[in-house]
Amino acid sequence: MAEVIDVDDPADPRVDDFRDLSDADRRPDLPGGKGLVIAEGVVVVQRMLDSRFTPSALLGVARRYDQLAADLAAVDVPYYRTSAEVMAEIVGFHLNRGVLAVARRPPELSMAEVVARARTVAVLEGVNDHENLGSMFRNAAGLGVDAVLFGDRCSDPLYRRSVRVSMGHVLRVPFARVPAWPDGLATLREHGFQLIAMTPDPAARNLASAMTGERVALLLGAEGPGLTAEAMRACDVRARIPMTPGTDSLNVATAAAMAFYERVRTA
Amino acid sequence: MAEVIDVDDPADPRVDDFRDLSDADRRPDLPGGKGLVIAEGVVVVQRMLDSRFTPSALLGVARRYDQLAADLAAVDVPYYRTSAEVMAEIVGFHLNRGVLAVARRPPELSMAEVVARARTVAVLEGVNDHENLGSMFRNAAGLGVDAVLFGDRCSDPLYRRSVRVSMGHVLRVPFARVPAWPDGLATLREHGFQLIAMTPDPAARNLASAMTGERVALLLGAEGPGLTAEAMRACDVRARIPMTPGTDSLNVATAAAMAFYERVRTA
Repeated sequence: MAEVIDVDDPADPRVDDFRDLSDADRRPDLPGGKGLVIAEGVVVVQRMLDSRFTPSALLGVARRYDQLAADLAAVDVPYYRTSAEVMAEIVGFHLNRGVLAVARRPPELSMAEVVARARTVAVLEGVNDHENLGSMFRNAAGLGVDAVLFGDRCSDPLYRRSVRVSMGHVLRVPFARVPAWPDGLATLREHGFQLIAMTPDPAARNLASAMTGERVALLLGAEGPGLTAEAMRACDVRARIPMTPGTDSLNVATAAAMAFYERVRTA
Repeated sequence: MAEVIDVDDPADPRVDDFRDLSDADRRPDLPGGKGLVIAEGVVVVQRMLDSRFTPSALLGVARRYDQLAADLAAVDVPYYRTSAEVMAEIVGFHLNRGVLAVARRPPELSMAEVVARARTVAVLEGVNDHENLGSMFRNAAGLGVDAVLFGDRCSDPLYRRSVRVSMGHVLRVPFARVPAWPDGLATLREHGFQLIAMTPDPAARNLASAMTGERVALLLGAEGPGLTAEAMRACDVRARIPMTPGTDSLNVATAAAMAFYERVRTA
C-alpha cells in the first residue's frame, strides 16, 4: 500500500525527481535530462500504474490521493502529499492536474518482442513532433494498433508532452526501435507483414484497395518530406489517402489515424 | 498592383492593424477585439488573396514580397515593407513567417448559401478549441467536405490561431451558423441530407454502414460531452467509429477526419 508522506518544504530533497520539470525534463533522452518518465493527472497516473513503467514516487494534493486510493492499494510507493502552492514551487509552474508520478525507464523492448503477436503495427520515420507522437499513441490505443516501431530520426516518445497528449497510452502500447534502418524492416516481411508506405503521391494506390494483408505494417514519414526513398523501397506497396487536388498533405498524426481507421472500419 | 511602402518606424500608424496581435486579436469576436482576420505566411496569404476575405494591407519583409509578387500583381493593396526587427516590434513578438495580411470581415454567409450545392457538410456543436477548429477546416479542404456549419457554443473560426492551423482553409471552405439550434437542422433534411450524429456510444451503428446518404451532414460535438441530446434527436442515425474498449474517445478533430475519410475512401 502506498505510504502517504506530507511535504511542506518545497526544497525537500525527497521530491527532487519532480523539480523544475519544464527545464530538467525538456529532453529526457539527452545526457542533460534525467531520463525520468512523468505521468500527469489521475487517468494518466492510473495508466502508468497499469503499465511496465513502475512509478518510484507520486507527488500530489490530498484530493487526488483520495481519487487514486484504490489504484494505490496494492502498490508500495511513496505518495508525497502537499498543497497546490508547494507543488507549483517544486514543479516550477502551476499544474492544474494535481498529481504526478515519476518512473525510471525500464529496459527497451526489442522489435521481435513487440511484433510477435501483433496484427497491425505503425512504423515511423523522422517523426519528431512530440504532440504528433502523443496523438499517434492515443489513436493507436483507440483503434487497435498493437505496436509502434521507430525508424531513424524520431523523437523520444516518453517526453513529458508526448505522454500527456497520448493520455498515457505511450506507456501501454508497446514500442521498439527498428535496428539497422531500413534494412531491419525485412524482419517484418519475414513475419508475414504487408509493408504499406503512406504517401501523398497521387500516383500511389488508394489505401482502401492497397491494404490487403492479414498482418499490416503502416509506414509513415514526417509531414513535409515524408518517407525517405530508402524506406519506400523497403515496402510492398505505396498507398495514398484520396485528397482534393491543390490542398496540403495531411498532418502525419491525422494521416496515421485514417490508416488505423481503414484497418478497423468494419470491426 | 500592390503598392510597396517602406516602414522604418514601429510606431507608424499606417500599420496599426498589425499591432500587438497577441493581445488585440486574442478574441476577435468580442468587443475588445478588432474583428480583423489575420493571415500569416506566404501560403496562407495566398489563400486569403484567393478567398472572399479581401486583405486591406500586408506587412512583411522584402523577401516575402518577392515571393508574393505574382499573387499581388492584380491586387490594389499596400504592402508595408520592413525589417524582421521592426516587424517584431509592431506585432509584439517575433514572427518567423515574415509576412502578414489583414482583412476586415465580410458579411457572414447564410446556411442556405453554403449548403446549396454541397454534398458533404460538417456540423459542429460546442467545439471551442481553436486548434481543433483549424484542423477540421484543413481536413475538410483536403478531403472534399464542402462546408462547415456551426451550432451552439462554437468558437470563432477566424481567430488567428485557427486560421494558421487550418493553413488558411478556413478562408476558403465556406461556413455559416445554423439559425435556431438545433431546429434549423430541419433545413438540411429538407435538402435531402442524411444527418449523422457522431458518438462514441458502443450502441450506435458502425459509421461505415450508417453512412448511406447521397448528401451527408456529419454532426460532431466537443470531446468529452459530445453532442447534446437535442442535437442527437434531430439526427437520422447515430454512428460510431469502432474503438478498443476501455480507451478514451477520440479527439474531435481526429474523429471528424475519420468521418471525412469514410466519405471519400474509395474516391
